[in-house]
Amino acid sequence: MVTADSNKQATPERFVNAINAHQLTEAMKAAVELEVFTAIAEGNGTAAMIATRCQCAERGVRTLCDFLSIHAFLTKEGTEYALAPDSALFLNRHSPAYMGTATEFLLAPHLREGHARLTEAVRRGGSALGETVLEPENPYWVKFAQAMMPLMRMPAEVMAAELRKGGEAHKVLDIAASHGMFGIFAAKQNPAAHVYAADWKNVLEVAGKNAEAMGVADRYHLLPGSAFETDFGSGYDLVLIPNFLHHFDLPTCTTFMRSMHAALEPGGRAAIAEFVPNPDRVTPPTAAAFSMMMLATTPAGDAYTFAELESILKSAGFARVELAPTEIGLDRLVIAYR
Amino acid sequence: MVTADSNKQATPERFVNAINAHQLTEAMKAAVELEVFTAIAEGNGTAAMIATRCQCAERGVRTLCDFLSIHAFLTKEGTEYALAPDSALFLNRHSPAYMGTATEFLLAPHLREGHARLTEAVRRGGSALGETVLEPENPYWVKFAQAMMPLMRMPAEVMAAELRKGGEAHKVLDIAASHGMFGIFAAKQNPAAHVYAADWKNVLEVAGKNAEAMGVADRYHLLPGSAFETDFGSGYDLVLIPNFLHHFDLPTCTTFMRSMHAALEPGGRAAIAEFVPNPDRVTPPTAAAFSMMMLATTPAGDAYTFAELESILKSAGFARVELAPTEIGLDRLVIAYR
Repeated sequence: MVTADSNKQATPERFVNAINAHQLTEAMKAAVELEVFTAIAEGNGTAAMIATRCQCAERGVRTLCDFLSIHAFLTKEGTEYALAPDSALFLNRHSPAYMGTATEFLLAPHLREGHARLTEAVRRGGSALGETVLEPENPYWVKFAQAMMPLMRMPAEVMAAELRKGGEAHKVLDIAASHGMFGIFAAKQNPAAHVYAADWKNVLEVAGKNAEAMGVADRYHLLPGSAFETDFGSGYDLVLIPNFLHHFDLPTCTTFMRSMHAALEPGGRAAIAEFVPNPDRVTPPTAAAFSMMMLATTPAGDAYTFAELESILKSAGFARVELAPTEIGLDRLVIAYR
Repeated sequence: MVTADSNKQATPERFVNAINAHQLTEAMKAAVELEVFTAIAEGNGTAAMIATRCQCAERGVRTLCDFLSIHAFLTKEGTEYALAPDSALFLNRHSPAYMGTATEFLLAPHLREGHARLTEAVRRGGSALGETVLEPENPYWVKFAQAMMPLMRMPAEVMAAELRKGGEAHKVLDIAASHGMFGIFAAKQNPAAHVYAADWKNVLEVAGKNAEAMGVADRYHLLPGSAFETDFGSGYDLVLIPNFLHHFDLPTCTTFMRSMHAALEPGGRAAIAEFVPNPDRVTPPTAAAFSMMMLATTPAGDAYTFAELESILKSAGFARVELAPTEIGLDRLVIAYR
């Protein structure tokens, strides 16, 4: 993200580059689809070598790799390209942390359309797409579960470890479990824990398979249905609510957190992972910018400040709310105590 | 454009932000369409006031303005937004330098489609759209002439002044005249100059109207047709070739510049305004990135280095080639002497 240099003469350069920002989206998408980062990781350094490996025209590869170098995803020395450290870690298909699949969700036609109709969204104060993202069993969330799993694995592991500092949980509810990572890591790190995963039925098929693959299926239970209508039972000592509240408006969040309060046993914790902007709503940039994703794609969702989350949680009956010091990927972790 | 900080732990933040870069495109487009910058210039500082002025929902405006603040097109103090200096100059409809119309060309569906099909363009080494951009009388260039005029006015004035340092030109040929600004300013600055504007017939209607509005119609002559087929005549002492060569491959540029050499009288100059990347092809960022625009939207165009332009011009018979020190907007000015 760009900072203005007020000593510099005004030129339309920043404006033109901002209008053309979609070029970076398309360049990253093309590079992932064509496996350009992987080709370079395999030792193909020049445009000619990458073109051969990726079955592309050398001219196309040269322009794409120059563009990625301008944006610091590659480096260039003479005619040799190399991977920037984060590209090597996240964009090389052979890396265990590969997350190129995230493009398939982040650039799903539905999300793109919501953004393409942003003028309309600003006029009405909510996504031009209406309620569709939140419809029952929308296959969109199956795609999310599949495509975003690599991006969420590490944060889920960090969050499980952070929560164990406050004591071992034995009955864990995982709301909007999706790929299941958050609950699965809670189960993996504590062999006594049983995890109850809640999500749409079609999405839980993904979570269930992942629980099996990661060896916790015998302590992994499925609760299919709407998070607002399912009877979750009670007696939980930990409820995980990762990246869920931002889809809804404040009253809906409060109603929902009341049901979570009821499901927890006394002393139990609700662990909320969210993009949490500062009170100014413009820092830190990535968390603050997430508000735009919600405006473009949900009827009334938002990136909530800590004060807003605290207000939701207090209204829902929680005794105490704290912001954990550890970052959970791009999220922060808010812990509410019953 | 982002720089990697190698001391920082690798996170997927840059990758996720790059995939989401299209949000900035849509935010700028929406803000221009809704006249958000203009509303703020008129004294509407809060989201509520801007929402009333722009007939939008306050929530939509707040998220949009926060997003524009994150990207430094606005500033935010408490709940008050203000314009960054370049936004005040270029994006307020009441400013004489307003260039919000540029979005209509830069985000024309055709250009968007070329970028959306970038994977295909990299594979084939040229736009997935084929030749369409270069087809005769494509209305796309009428849109360009209308939408880009505000962006080109100042550079055209600077270029005309720079060229007068090398002597007054009396018979000026303006290639791909478009909005006509480059030739019109040559005529305005030298009352003895006659300008011959070459472009498609439909585009020259725009240039002709502008020449009339700017008081030089009596010395403004139209040469409709393809730049590769029109008989331009001879005896020119100056040929203007602004932002034209980048649409074509090197052999085509060389052939074309031979015809320009023939049209010039001895001692005459060809003045080429172009994005000129350094030999590394990755700096300066905006000029170097223009290669991507050409890959996505033309069959074989490119942003040429000075060495490449010099080679074209020497092959076409020019005696001497120099890079002028003055920047012409985002372009550089290359002058070739017959």
